[in-house]
Amino acid sequence: MLEPGAHRAVDLIDDTAVAEALRTVEIAWLRALAATGAMPAADAGRAAEALSRARLDVGDLGRQAEDAGNPVVPLVAALREAVADERLAVRVHRGLTSQDTLDTALVLLTRDVFDRVGADLGTTADHLAALAERHRDAVMAGRTLTQHAVPVTFGLTAAQWLAGVLDARDAVLDRRDRLPVQCGGAAGTLSLVADLAPDPVATARAFAAELTLRWPGLPWHTRRRPVTDAGDALVGVCDALGVLATDVTVLGRPEIAEVREGPAGGRGGSSTMPHKRNPVLSVLVRGAALQAPQLGAQLHLAAAQAVDQRPDGAWHAEWPALRRLLELTITAASQAAELTAGLEVDTTAMRARADHAADGLLAERGTTGDPADYLGAAGRFVDTVLDRHHS
Amino acid sequence: MLEPGAHRAVDLIDDTAVAEALRTVEIAWLRALAATGAMPAADAGRAAEALSRARLDVGDLGRQAEDAGNPVVPLVAALREAVADERLAVRVHRGLTSQDTLDTALVLLTRDVFDRVGADLGTTADHLAALAERHRDAVMAGRTLTQHAVPVTFGLTAAQWLAGVLDARDAVLDRRDRLPVQCGGAAGTLSLVADLAPDPVATARAFAAELTLRWPGLPWHTRRRPVTDAGDALVGVCDALGVLATDVTVLGRPEIAEVREGPAGGRGGSSTMPHKRNPVLSVLVRGAALQAPQLGAQLHLAAAQAVDQRPDGAWHAEWPALRRLLELTITAASQAAELTAGLEVDTTAMRARADHAADGLLAERGTTGDPADYLGAAGRFVDTVLDRHHS
Amino acid sequence: MLEPGAHRAVDLIDDTAVAEALRTVEIAWLRALAATGAMPAADAGRAAEALSRARLDVGDLGRQAEDAGNPVVPLVAALREAVADERLAVRVHRGLTSQDTLDTALVLLTRDVFDRVGADLGTTADHLAALAERHRDAVMAGRTLTQHAVPVTFGLTAAQWLAGVLDARDAVLDRRDRLPVQCGGAAGTLSLVADLAPDPVATARAFAAELTLRWPGLPWHTRRRPVTDAGDALVGVCDALGVLATDVTVLGRPEIAEVREGPAGGRGGSSTMPHKRNPVLSVLVRGAALQAPQLGAQLHLAAAQAVDQRPDGAWHAEWPALRRLLELTITAASQAAELTAGLEVDTTAMRARADHAADGLLAERGTTGDPADYLGAAGRFVDTVLDRHHS
Amino acid sequence: MLEPGAHRAVDLIDDTAVAEALRTVEIAWLRALAATGAMPAADAGRAAEALSRARLDVGDLGRQAEDAGNPVVPLVAALREAVADERLAVRVHRGLTSQDTLDTALVLLTRDVFDRVGADLGTTADHLAALAERHRDAVMAGRTLTQHAVPVTFGLTAAQWLAGVLDARDAVLDRRDRLPVQCGGAAGTLSLVADLAPDPVATARAFAAELTLRWPGLPWHTRRRPVTDAGDALVGVCDALGVLATDVTVLGRPEIAEVREGPAGGRGGSSTMPHKRNPVLSVLVRGAALQAPQLGAQLHLAAAQAVDQRPDGAWHAEWPALRRLLELTITAASQAAELTAGLEVDTTAMRARADHAADGLLAERGTTGDPADYLGAAGRFVDTVLDRHHS
Repeated sequence: MLEPGAHRAVDLIDDTAVAEALRTVEIAWLRALAATGAMPAADAGRAAEALSRARLDVGDLGRQAEDAGNPVVPLVAALREAVADERLAVRVHRGLTSQDTLDTALVLLTRDVFDRVGADLGTTADHLAALAERHRDAVMAGRTLTQHAVPVTFGLTAAQWLAGVLDARDAVLDRRDRLPVQCGGAAGTLSLVADLAPDPVATARAFAAELTLRWPGLPWHTRRRPVTDAGDALVGVCDALGVLATDVTVLGRPEIAEVREGPAGGRGGSSTMPHKRNPVLSVLVRGAALQAPQLGAQLHLAAAQAVDQRPDGAWHAEWPALRRLLELTITAASQAAELTAGLEVDTTAMRARADHAADGLLAERGTTGDPADYLGAAGRFVDTVLDRHHS
Repeated sequence: MLEPGAHRAVDLIDDTAVAEALRTVEIAWLRALAATGAMPAADAGRAAEALSRARLDVGDLGRQAEDAGNPVVPLVAALREAVADERLAVRVHRGLTSQDTLDTALVLLTRDVFDRVGADLGTTADHLAALAERHRDAVMAGRTLTQHAVPVTFGLTAAQWLAGVLDARDAVLDRRDRLPVQCGGAAGTLSLVADLAPDPVATARAFAAELTLRWPGLPWHTRRRPVTDAGDALVGVCDALGVLATDVTVLGRPEIAEVREGPAGGRGGSSTMPHKRNPVLSVLVRGAALQAPQLGAQLHLAAAQAVDQRPDGAWHAEWPALRRLLELTITAASQAAELTAGLEVDTTAMRARADHAADGLLAERGTTGDPADYLGAAGRFVDTVLDRHHS
Repeated sequence: MLEPGAHRAVDLIDDTAVAEALRTVEIAWLRALAATGAMPAADAGRAAEALSRARLDVGDLGRQAEDAGNPVVPLVAALREAVADERLAVRVHRGLTSQDTLDTALVLLTRDVFDRVGADLGTTADHLAALAERHRDAVMAGRTLTQHAVPVTFGLTAAQWLAGVLDARDAVLDRRDRLPVQCGGAAGTLSLVADLAPDPVATARAFAAELTLRWPGLPWHTRRRPVTDAGDALVGVCDALGVLATDVTVLGRPEIAEVREGPAGGRGGSSTMPHKRNPVLSVLVRGAALQAPQLGAQLHLAAAQAVDQRPDGAWHAEWPALRRLLELTITAASQAAELTAGLEVDTTAMRARADHAADGLLAERGTTGDPADYLGAAGRFVDTVLDRHHS
Repeated sequence: MLEPGAHRAVDLIDDTAVAEALRTVEIAWLRALAATGAMPAADAGRAAEALSRARLDVGDLGRQAEDAGNPVVPLVAALREAVADERLAVRVHRGLTSQDTLDTALVLLTRDVFDRVGADLGTTADHLAALAERHRDAVMAGRTLTQHAVPVTFGLTAAQWLAGVLDARDAVLDRRDRLPVQCGGAAGTLSLVADLAPDPVATARAFAAELTLRWPGLPWHTRRRPVTDAGDALVGVCDALGVLATDVTVLGRPEIAEVREGPAGGRGGSSTMPHKRNPVLSVLVRGAALQAPQLGAQLHLAAAQAVDQRPDGAWHAEWPALRRLLELTITAASQAAELTAGLEVDTTAMRARADHAADGLLAERGTTGDPADYLGAAGRFVDTVLDRHHS
């Protein structure tokens, strides 16, 4: 109830999603063992089958997570119990450490979130491109440090938002394709795997291949760049959307009234004032942008404290921050797609204001006249961004 | 599953707790209206009765929260629906704004959390006082910048932890007793209340009295100090517990082995290494201390952006951070109480190390000898803290 | 050059101020030793005299600070060199540890900053009180979530700013009077002092008394609450000023134009647009409010990591954050005093807008009419804050 | 004095460096104007010559920066004054806005810092590679959650540090080559440039070429990704070095004593304890890693608030954070290069501890024996990282 719009994210990041990702990882591990000669394929198949049918109680797992400090220990216990044959049961998770499973599961979640966010950013980009194109030459007052500066166009304003969204999406897609599997065993040497399989690195590679993840060459239990890189990309999404949302709240003030959030069934109502239409989506996206940087910082702080072969608290401090950042970014990206779909633009009001403020807007030039004659490269900049978007 | 131990907090801060607090606030408002002549007592009683029986679906409320940007609008709708008599239904929430209800509800949650955390800190303090007393003169090597310095005592170490816990508890209790009601109406003037009641400020006072909260003299929709003060107190709790937990992880390293987390049924197990007993509680408390400061900063950032008569995103950015900080602090305080209850202290190992390192530990003095002869005011400092604790 | 306005702070927090504070601390220590029988008063007087005349090269001290990890080691060397008599020279700093000296020196700086900031907040409060009084009943449109809500007054707006400033000042003054001396020796036991003086705690008390600081009962090398409390108070100042500054930037937008930063010789000019008058002070204060929370969080993070008897990096991470937060707050408080002194308020524009928007502003009431008739307790709230200010 | 080691950074980031970068930018602009037909080459040459000889008083510029809210306005005034011919003087900065000059100057500083930091990371990588190679098979106890896990090698430990450093350097170099010029004029349209030059975009390109920076296609006054990308890369450097430094402080504890900071003339001394050798460099690098994340978050927060055509405080909040982050990273990278150069590794102690703890270290395997026989892929992982380093 305190994260309006978070229902948009729940399927990708709630405890069920975490549990399913953990299960997927353990199944992939069995297959990787089989694929590299560490256990018979038939055994792995039977065990995997049992794992895929195991009933996981996320409430119980959550409570039990405290005993071991992480949810993998009780999860493995539950999965092993689901494998009737004890000889097979002991092979579940064998060779991995908790961090292998949990890190990889969070990577899987992150990948799904990147896909969702990437798609929503794509939709937002389409909406913004349409706005930039339609209003390419619509004159509006430029504002710097809150005061009127020189004329700009709404097309350029939208193109700048678009460029920000494209930058953010590029970063997300770039990181998405480099997400690595985690596989190192108890202290990052694959020592137990080496006892089980002829070539432990081949098993790790097979593990990655099962999950369509990258094998990064060695484990990263204490090198948390995959996590901080993901975090930076997510924060970057919120940054870009925050600029857009903040501009919409400013330009939608009643005294400016140059843009307005579109109406959607009952959205924006007040608990006491019948006339109000609050810019709810912009407000929520702005709120997200105020929260994301601290979550990103949290991931970096944890990264810098990743001591020994596996850390003593810093790793644990990552999980809630990462999950919250995933939730926040999914929500904001989805809300932004809706916001930009319905954004109402009043180019008449923009033009009227620009005309009214023409003396000030043209003071730099030292002349008076038509603000539309002093737009410099605005149109070309719009085209540049649209070309990028369409390419 | 990603916040091990958070089940300790769930009853105080989950969506149900939020919904119940919101309900409590709306009932108190009806009573305050009645108490100050804004509606007949019988009417208020009937409406309050209906509210207390209304079924609230937190899932629905959560989803609907997005439309208005906060959960109060759908909650009020649900509550009004539960009041059969439409004449009474419209009096529900009448005169308040969403922020009055939500801020006050979060204050109620915070008060409950302060009580819980205060109690857990009291328990922890008792445990630490017992340790400090028992081991008042137990010599151990002092360590500064990781290296041996001069001798100290474990009593002093425990007394310093205790002093930190007492400071943190004092701050919590101090803030607890100053928690204010929020009551201002649509834009902080109580304008609608003034239409309903003879003296709107009297109604606001009655509202506070119903909830045993402080009436702060005027609304604080855009002055968020009650929130940041609460946040600072909570972060301060995590700071103090973080020091304790970090010390325990260091002193519990196998090469030092001067303290050890007590065993608790199966706690501290590894998913792969049967011999391990991980200091799970210390690790989790340390993790909490790495997270709290960013959450506190989040509240300050929101506070500084509280523009207009009610803000456009900054308010919304507070809620998840405050809830998460409440959850984290409850969990850490509870874990710390358990950790200190079971802490195993090996004073023999401490003494042996101090004796072995005596030359270094006494180098400042320029002599050699017994480290126990060079303890300065250590014992007096222990007594000072114990006196404070017992007073 | 990258912290506009920071010249307002330089005398209180630059390296020279740090060096002088360090010197003051070392002199006070000599006097405390003498006052409590640890050295002859005449010797202490001669040594103190030499210290007070010692030439300190802050550039050299800064460079040498790296070798010991802090500036006290080279400072003590320089001070000792200034004492001709070697017998006396060795008494300088004798019994203290670097952290005693540096922590206490930073406390002295903080106290001076609190005094300056408290004074500037007092000046700002006077300006705001005058505004609130003069414009007590000046109607303006209330704005929530950026949209028009119900009518308010500029008096109430100013009174809310004032209440925020008073809260911030109260916190600063409260903390100012509780600032403690740091005195523990190498590992917090005063062991060496106990060899020098009959009662080491009496020496610590005398040290505090020399500096008019509080003796906190025991050292706080690893309990950093004095630092985080100071930080929280400073961040709270920036929060309160940030709200004021943000409101000024919003209300000063040309389309709203209800307030305006006063002109000051050339301030607010643009490098290219001759007509512009940028709200420079508000912009800079807003910028400060965006920076302070991270600095406060930095102090808490360091506090939570204060391991052992003296920490291994966390202490060092405090200094730049604390100094920067001091600088930022001095600057913002001073700029805010100037901003509020010159603030131009256009109550005619406010009233015209409120009249123009009357239908919306009165929609909650369900009537039309004069916005001035729907102000609820606005005037009383103004009086409440003014009473507090004048009391 | 409060940033030990910062003298390593001062030449690249102090006010003089800022002023010189600003001057360089303004000279490049004159040349770009000339190169694209906006002014005669001879005029540009004479003006540039005058600029290059102008005396800049950074103290004055700093103080005057407050009036305009940034240092460019007084700088341009000073530069114009240095051009005797008034006809030429007015061409200085003509077409640019303050943000073009300051953003580009900070980009130039960042590039220099990236080069310095990249070189220091390269040196550190060489040292770590040598350590990893020399001690490829040196057995040591693996530690997870502070407790003994399975055996590892010091070679692998060093290789993990190396991999972190290589990742960080790759990110720095990647960002270095994409650093963009800022060029948009008053509100990002190049409107005045279009009056001066036949093709304003060609002028912007020429400007970029003069400074060997990338022309990003359009201005980024409100899209701050170049700044946040730089910040993320710098924080990433501190993260990687923080892990290394934290490990060194842990492994250098007297009870573990497996590594030790090398001695350097007097470094690591205590103000009171003659025997101590504090791990000063590790402590300082650890401290840096505790500070960097908040500074990175600061940049993201500012980015998300970059409203209008040029923002009202968010831009100003970037500068001190960016400069401090540059300073911190230069210092930490330089200290890390020195730390790794002198790191003393005691493989005998490592081996002795591993042998002594063999039962625990081999418990996962379910056997006893020689820890050296249970190293899995440790050696191959070392080789993988060394191959990457040498490629």
